[in-house]
Amino acid sequence: MALEEFHIKEEDAIRVRHERLRATVAVIFEKLGVPEDDAQLGADCLVMADLRGVDSHGVSNMLKSYVNGYNQGTINPRPRWRIVHEAPSAATIDCDRGLGIMIAPKAMDIAIAKAHTTGVAAVTMGNGRHLGMASYHAMRALSHDMIGMCMTAVGAFILPTFGREPRLGSNPVAYAVPAKEEAPFVMDWATSMVAGNKLEIGRRLKATIPGNWIARRDGSIITEPGPVPAQGEYYLLPFGGTREMGSHKGYSLMALVDILCSILSGSGYATITPGMSKHFVGAYNIASFTDVDEFKRSMDAFLQGLKNTPPAVGHDRVIYPGQVEAEEEKERRVKGIPLHREVVQWLEDICRELSIPVAW
Amino acid sequence: MALEEFHIKEEDAIRVRHERLRATVAVIFEKLGVPEDDAQLGADCLVMADLRGVDSHGVSNMLKSYVNGYNQGTINPRPRWRIVHEAPSAATIDCDRGLGIMIAPKAMDIAIAKAHTTGVAAVTMGNGRHLGMASYHAMRALSHDMIGMCMTAVGAFILPTFGREPRLGSNPVAYAVPAKEEAPFVMDWATSMVAGNKLEIGRRLKATIPGNWIARRDGSIITEPGPVPAQGEYYLLPFGGTREMGSHKGYSLMALVDILCSILSGSGYATITPGMSKHFVGAYNIASFTDVDEFKRSMDAFLQGLKNTPPAVGHDRVIYPGQVEAEEEKERRVKGIPLHREVVQWLEDICRELSIPVAW
Repeated sequence: MALEEFHIKEEDAIRVRHERLRATVAVIFEKLGVPEDDAQLGADCLVMADLRGVDSHGVSNMLKSYVNGYNQGTINPRPRWRIVHEAPSAATIDCDRGLGIMIAPKAMDIAIAKAHTTGVAAVTMGNGRHLGMASYHAMRALSHDMIGMCMTAVGAFILPTFGREPRLGSNPVAYAVPAKEEAPFVMDWATSMVAGNKLEIGRRLKATIPGNWIARRDGSIITEPGPVPAQGEYYLLPFGGTREMGSHKGYSLMALVDILCSILSGSGYATITPGMSKHFVGAYNIASFTDVDEFKRSMDAFLQGLKNTPPAVGHDRVIYPGQVEAEEEKERRVKGIPLHREVVQWLEDICRELSIPVAW
Repeated sequence: MALEEFHIKEEDAIRVRHERLRATVAVIFEKLGVPEDDAQLGADCLVMADLRGVDSHGVSNMLKSYVNGYNQGTINPRPRWRIVHEAPSAATIDCDRGLGIMIAPKAMDIAIAKAHTTGVAAVTMGNGRHLGMASYHAMRALSHDMIGMCMTAVGAFILPTFGREPRLGSNPVAYAVPAKEEAPFVMDWATSMVAGNKLEIGRRLKATIPGNWIARRDGSIITEPGPVPAQGEYYLLPFGGTREMGSHKGYSLMALVDILCSILSGSGYATITPGMSKHFVGAYNIASFTDVDEFKRSMDAFLQGLKNTPPAVGHDRVIYPGQVEAEEEKERRVKGIPLHREVVQWLEDICRELSIPVAW
């Protein structure tokens, strides 16, 4: 399936200015008991996903579950997160059930401050809730001339290679690297064959998914293309899909993320901590390794070399990781963020419920 | 293709004791001008790959190219490697054209020493030569109760997604994590669809490779299974193979490895440094993040949970990354390392040439 199939059709879309959407989401968070600063931070994380075209992690796909979590008490709106272990380049945070979209930026700031002093630093975070778009946090390092990384481990719903019971989460990995003139290199992807919420969007949009993306409940892999089965009727596979196509690689990376986020933070692992998210952020201070300007100029040349690769037969262009998202952000900042009219309706309903005036 | 197809048939194999093989390889290195300590270290790295069943990076598949490199002067037997940039958690090394199998362990020791003090550390290494098995270096952290990582960036022979000219190397990534009773978690894999030298072994053993593993020279992907084409008649693809199966993920990871190993070490990138290898090693000191004993017990439970996953229809068992290699090592330490008789013949020839007595 081409990713475009997941995009909202223009006739179903209402374009909303990012500033308005961000302000509205922040007020919704505040009405749910979140302090103002955290509300702003969380809204920025969500809307940045929408701006960069990562709809799966933006307002339309995530806000509802956050609102439900606050209402049901599974997410703590005023977490007393704290550092429970610390060293010059390392820290472990207990998130006190706070949303990752608000705590991970602060953990990243800790990693950045430490990396300024030591060169490299990492912060692992236990007992947390949803991270949002992982690259949002990794990109926080860019303006400091650092390489940022971010991972998150979530509940067990992916099969290990050759297994028939889920053991791991879709555990995304993100890295962001600054360049000089070019948009930054930004990678951010699930270690599963496909992100779970992307499949849910696929179902909503009645998309056909390729073979080898998911397995039946007995662990056998569905090899033919078809629609997304009902939730509970399939399992996700590690990136690679089948062993022959390298699913052992996706499986191992997925497990590594659970180790770095969960076990290293003293916060269990996926199968024993359902509903919990754990995170891992880090920063590499470029100046501690090499000349920063030389690094960035070399990044430009490297990224241009990737962009300028002659395309394969049947393709228009080669892109580098983060390039399309930067292009999308540029466009959406001007034209607005396309939200499905049902999402806009839901936003207006929730605003009415919480007595928030809406003006798109 | 099942990996077993790559294993040497028992009737073609001669079993060699690992101690004898290690000693012989060390003497070969010494005869080529390598100092004794480095010769021992390099031999240990190669033979450990053979012990763990990673034949692609062991004596049979790598030693010949190292011997040629020393003879042709492309590898420096007595490199004056030095630290060219340093911070409390970071260092950059110029390898002076020395083999990674000998310098990366020393870089890893630097990272380990730094991580003891600060919690996390990384060392990037430019101007190097072949790394050997990446997990060998990552595993060096295990006895220090640390998580080890190791990556290497090599010449440009892999296509970026949608491209028809190679831009990146197969750039493997390795992590090693200690457990208490269980064998360590060890992942180590190429970010290409398949390691280049595995394809060469495949050709030697006349194996059939699956569709979507490689592309034609015009960038179009060979979708049907078949034999390995002649060298120069195909390009390797990033892990994922096709875009639909996630090749953009493999491509981005492959590019990230080039950034961390090459650009961060001030040593260019794949397309402008043919024949050069660059490396990146790091260590996370577990005690800086959490209680070490609790971490290791949690690792045991986590790994046992993976091993005990009920297998999918048609499969016998689920394994965790590093488990099979640990089993293989146990067996090969007793039964010897199976080398193809042609490899043993070549070893005996080279020993004769260098006036080294051979006694298997």
